[in-house]
Amino acid sequence: MADIRPEPGRGSATPLLDRVHRPADLRALDGSTLTALATEIRGFLIAEVSRSGGHLGPNLGTVELTIALHRVFESPRDRILWDTGHQSYAHKLLTGRKDFSRLRAKGGLSGYPSRAESEHDLIENSHASTALGWADGLAKAYRLAGRADRRVVAIVGDGALTGGMAWEGLNSLADQNLRVVVVVNDNGRSYAPTRGGLARHLSARRTAGGRRQRLREVPVAGAPLYRALHAMKTKITNMRAPQSLFQGLGVEYLGPVDGHDIAATEEALRQATRLDGPVVVHCVTRKGNGFAAAEQDELDRMHVVRPRSAAGGRPPADWTSVFADEMVRIGAERPDVVAVTAAMLEPVGLQAFAERYPDRVFDVGIAEQHAVTSAAGLSAGGAHPVVALYATFLNRAFDQVLMDVALHGCGVTFALDRAGATGSDGPSHNGMWDLSMLQLVPTMQIAAPRDGTRLRAQLREAIAVEGHPTMVRYPKGPVAPDIEPVARAGTAEILALPDGPGDVLIVAVGPMAAAALGAAGRLAAEGVAVTVVDPCWVKPLDAELLKLAEAHRLVVTVEDNGRVAGAGAALAQAMRDAGIHRPLHQAALPQEFLAQAGRDEVLEQAGLTARGIARDVAHALARLRVTDHEEVV
Amino acid sequence: MADIRPEPGRGSATPLLDRVHRPADLRALDGSTLTALATEIRGFLIAEVSRSGGHLGPNLGTVELTIALHRVFESPRDRILWDTGHQSYAHKLLTGRKDFSRLRAKGGLSGYPSRAESEHDLIENSHASTALGWADGLAKAYRLAGRADRRVVAIVGDGALTGGMAWEGLNSLADQNLRVVVVVNDNGRSYAPTRGGLARHLSARRTAGGRRQRLREVPVAGAPLYRALHAMKTKITNMRAPQSLFQGLGVEYLGPVDGHDIAATEEALRQATRLDGPVVVHCVTRKGNGFAAAEQDELDRMHVVRPRSAAGGRPPADWTSVFADEMVRIGAERPDVVAVTAAMLEPVGLQAFAERYPDRVFDVGIAEQHAVTSAAGLSAGGAHPVVALYATFLNRAFDQVLMDVALHGCGVTFALDRAGATGSDGPSHNGMWDLSMLQLVPTMQIAAPRDGTRLRAQLREAIAVEGHPTMVRYPKGPVAPDIEPVARAGTAEILALPDGPGDVLIVAVGPMAAAALGAAGRLAAEGVAVTVVDPCWVKPLDAELLKLAEAHRLVVTVEDNGRVAGAGAALAQAMRDAGIHRPLHQAALPQEFLAQAGRDEVLEQAGLTARGIARDVAHALARLRVTDHEEVV
Repeated sequence: MADIRPEPGRGSATPLLDRVHRPADLRALDGSTLTALATEIRGFLIAEVSRSGGHLGPNLGTVELTIALHRVFESPRDRILWDTGHQSYAHKLLTGRKDFSRLRAKGGLSGYPSRAESEHDLIENSHASTALGWADGLAKAYRLAGRADRRVVAIVGDGALTGGMAWEGLNSLADQNLRVVVVVNDNGRSYAPTRGGLARHLSARRTAGGRRQRLREVPVAGAPLYRALHAMKTKITNMRAPQSLFQGLGVEYLGPVDGHDIAATEEALRQATRLDGPVVVHCVTRKGNGFAAAEQDELDRMHVVRPRSAAGGRPPADWTSVFADEMVRIGAERPDVVAVTAAMLEPVGLQAFAERYPDRVFDVGIAEQHAVTSAAGLSAGGAHPVVALYATFLNRAFDQVLMDVALHGCGVTFALDRAGATGSDGPSHNGMWDLSMLQLVPTMQIAAPRDGTRLRAQLREAIAVEGHPTMVRYPKGPVAPDIEPVARAGTAEILALPDGPGDVLIVAVGPMAAAALGAAGRLAAEGVAVTVVDPCWVKPLDAELLKLAEAHRLVVTVEDNGRVAGAGAALAQAMRDAGIHRPLHQAALPQEFLAQAGRDEVLEQAGLTARGIARDVAHALARLRVTDHEEVV
Repeated sequence: MADIRPEPGRGSATPLLDRVHRPADLRALDGSTLTALATEIRGFLIAEVSRSGGHLGPNLGTVELTIALHRVFESPRDRILWDTGHQSYAHKLLTGRKDFSRLRAKGGLSGYPSRAESEHDLIENSHASTALGWADGLAKAYRLAGRADRRVVAIVGDGALTGGMAWEGLNSLADQNLRVVVVVNDNGRSYAPTRGGLARHLSARRTAGGRRQRLREVPVAGAPLYRALHAMKTKITNMRAPQSLFQGLGVEYLGPVDGHDIAATEEALRQATRLDGPVVVHCVTRKGNGFAAAEQDELDRMHVVRPRSAAGGRPPADWTSVFADEMVRIGAERPDVVAVTAAMLEPVGLQAFAERYPDRVFDVGIAEQHAVTSAAGLSAGGAHPVVALYATFLNRAFDQVLMDVALHGCGVTFALDRAGATGSDGPSHNGMWDLSMLQLVPTMQIAAPRDGTRLRAQLREAIAVEGHPTMVRYPKGPVAPDIEPVARAGTAEILALPDGPGDVLIVAVGPMAAAALGAAGRLAAEGVAVTVVDPCWVKPLDAELLKLAEAHRLVVTVEDNGRVAGAGAALAQAMRDAGIHRPLHQAALPQEFLAQAGRDEVLEQAGLTARGIARDVAHALARLRVTDHEEVV
């Protein structure tokens, strides 16, 4: 078959983009060239992201906005801050990063801004609603340094505005009268239907503002069209009438402007930079813009696409779908069970529950703190809430889990998806903190099911608990095949027993069971007798597990979690408290920010594979022999 | 001297209050009797709280509001939720709790609502801005249960509205159209001066609302008076024009109403209960109302008063004042050092810094998340921020410390006051989580100075660090006397060395040094040779400390922090990793919610005294001998 790729430099699909190496190059281009450039970028993104996988819809929505931003602001002297950051692909292209071949893969471009990649990037945290805080601090620092020439612009999605941090940030920007431009990237996918106020407010803004600010207006933003557009949303979120909010706070407001009209957006941004205080530029964009397949995707406008190789055929059952299915069953049996999530209804698997029990699901928007405290209230009111989140996002609500739920003795169950290494979304998506953070919470019970059967069972056990919180965690990806226990030790389950007395006890947390059993097999071949046990409940630990530990020469814990303060540390502490002085080795993720790679690559690198665990055990045994020898000497 | 106390039942200072045993009793009283009752309650609070210590100003501000609430709502069928909860003393009196003799002391009444005390209490968490989340959950649960008769009312201070959770809660109440009454207790102590919008908005509300809602208006709330009142504030916070905010969100707004006018407040609350959705009742109150000394206190209207026994004379230097003083010195030397706090300028000791360097201090209001992320921005912009908070409130910003500050390599220093047991404010004020929570944060350096000299030195060391975060923690109360080291072990300092080889190594974290030395003395008398070492830097631990541990038979760690995942656990892990298998015993606070008591009582109870530590060491040694014996057998 002939190679149909264009030769380098000739017949390129992106001749204009090929000429843009840095933002300054944009400033020489005229209007029609910029429009053509936007088309090129859009085509590039559709082709590349469809192949590699990644965020598509959000990036198609910000092409023109990004061009306008880089023409008005001079990065990196000026700071362009992308909230959440999954919409920064065009920004990458315009700042010289064009090799998308390994996007989100090990060694490739990050799916978010990355300081290591470019001086044009600053915030690489993919947790939402942080950009106004960053902008506030930067603007204060520049003001103190007498650098009035350095401007700060934050691009925040309408969805991220529901986060409490955004509110705190707006308050502070207004209080300090900081010269920060806040671009609200309103892609119409988050607002609730206008209930009275919004359309009227918007319409008034357009009439008054259209003349005074001479902005070209977005045709869809008229009250009826706007209402129609915003009624298309499929998710329940909580933003309404941001205009009156901003004005009430004393923040200037410009817009709405069509974020796909480069000249209009540029003009609005230029006006904004002339103001001597915080200003919101309300940009209306369309997620998935210019790609019919994305525009027609009613669910989420192709928010994320999977790599082409992974597409096609029915995906294997994953942990999320097992949770989703069991929740529907539990919902049928227990009318008091309700579900709470934070702008993640579909990703955490609550879509089916929501369809069956629409009154019993609460999507509070990007607002994890509120998700947790309102769950405490639901519990106090007689319901049993299941708060379903990605594990890493629960970090946002540590205080609420501790002080609202646990202190008040509320029966709330946390279902944490994406617990453990997630890999391709980089350090801030890895769910490697929850198992440690929740160890600090008095009365919290923590389950880490090892397979689908156990997930179903432990979810039920957790939801049956009243009077204190419970947590069930499970990772990203296909659900692990069932492993039946060969014996029990209290609530712990023994998965492998050597014929005679065991040398080594491997305590395998959750889905680490398979790798632990693999390691046991390898070690058996070398004459090391290994017992493998799944604690099932990581907190509290069963006393029988301690007896088991005492009956072995070496204990090795294996967990897909940071090694500080996790399940291994908890067992070590329980052993110390019980006066059991056996050496304990912890296999876990290093307590570091882990560079992006596939989940399997991250686990491999951390030694969380059969081979890695076997090697660790062998090393620990060897060291033990040396120590024993020394002590004898 | 004659006993001038009135005889019980005769000549009581509170004859009306004596007749109120439950909220229903209020509903039989007429207007003038209620006014007289309010006067009695105010007199009672001034007398009792002046003697026992506690929150005075806030409680004097809510007497009439509380009476009105209990006449309109039927607690506990209806739920009255006090945000933060330090303004609930009148509520306690009206729900049958009149013995204030041991207020905030062990076994006495809590300074906050307490479920253990009364069925009329629900939220006992003293962290701010949670009430709307609770209200949201309760109202959802009651709606699901078909209990339209159960009403929910949340009382939120204007200061607490700056917290992101309040915003998240308002969004959700509006989105779900929940029948929740939100009383904004605006005591004029938190709003920033009206910069254009507020006075106009308020004035408009009064004209339109005064007629429609027929509320009696508060005389001070006219635009000029309101402006004058609000200009009296001494703290910088961030709320403006809540009216337009509420309306923009689609939340009904009633007010402003004079919160010291029982009938007017009652009428507003009754109107609010008739609405079929969320409604804000804007109550203007005066902190310290009716007590001249409090009304004239420009700093904080006697927010908290100390017990009478403690008053008089110059208070001993406390940790806060040492921090305060050193910050001023550092500020003179390092113009890049700035301070950030969250509505705690004076309590954390930044008043002097603010007076000397007004441009370099940022009080962001009750908004810990923003405090931390804006500090990341300040660092990225070239400043070195010191974020000064009470330790327990940093829980609110775990994700921001992790993902904004540490992941981004920001040189931010956290100064955590009230670290360790605080006692009298109950479980949610104890600073027993920080030392564990921050163990999870990669690159974080943690200092726990043992005395004033070390606090000054380590604060400087911390602030000298760039490229990653540092934390310095110190407790409530008088600063510990200086203890000079007798030797050094890397960054650790040896405070006591036995003549010969040591049996036991006591690792004393921060101000636990004195108790550890006391224990060492007691043990020496019993022939046990003890080395006492202060790690100084708890994270990372110096390798020399590990060598020291290896040179002893038993290691005992002592820390004023929860025992899970703290300094002791970190040392145990470091020893495991280094292959040092020595028994380690942890003396620390139990990982529980600790009932209120004095700080010393809490420490005593946890065994964190010289006697307690000596006893622990003796037990651990005895157990060790048994184990050794068993192994020999």
